[in-house]
Amino acid sequence: MAQVLVIYNTPADPAAFNLHYREKHVPLANRIPGLRSYTISDGPVNALSGTAPHLIATLEFDSMDDLNTALTSPEGQAAADDLPNFASGGATLLIFETAKV
Amino acid sequence: MAQVLVIYNTPADPAAFNLHYREKHVPLANRIPGLRSYTISDGPVNALSGTAPHLIATLEFDSMDDLNTALTSPEGQAAADDLPNFASGGATLLIFETAKV
Repeated sequence: MAQVLVIYNTPADPAAFNLHYREKHVPLANRIPGLRSYTISDGPVNALSGTAPHLIATLEFDSMDDLNTALTSPEGQAAADDLPNFASGGATLLIFETAKV
Repeated sequence: MAQVLVIYNTPADPAAFNLHYREKHVPLANRIPGLRSYTISDGPVNALSGTAPHLIATLEFDSMDDLNTALTSPEGQAAADDLPNFASGGATLLIFETAKV
């Protein structure tokens, strides 16, 4: 499997972020082709070490090829283009293959 | 579900980190009670924005109660106590509940 992990820093207006994320961004991201699962943090993220972000999203694909195709698709671009509309605190966007251990 | 996300910064000696992680840490973490899945990044982590860490580990539990019980168990403590043995670059350790969207 391959994963996109998006770690959103705390935005200027968390309530506005949450509303936009749920109402606008989730529907956009769910249109991305090849998306196998889409999971987000539900409630607060607590840091046992390091800095706690505002929200964490995990998008899974069957392979890195599928992930790359997805990100460059019109639907992937539409989701990426939506980030400046709500992610005022910035975000870290990581991609990698995964293995069960 | 509830998740522990461990984001390891690049250590001083990545090869030594990888060897210790696979040979010592994975067996310790797999003994944690209530662990439902344990997935790690396989190969390089690429950052489309933000800083790329060395390795990402995701540990899933049925609930936040199970997660808290797991982290305070002797097996959870043994895994936590192993971190200074290899994570020389430091790590961010996040816990949160998850929801499919």
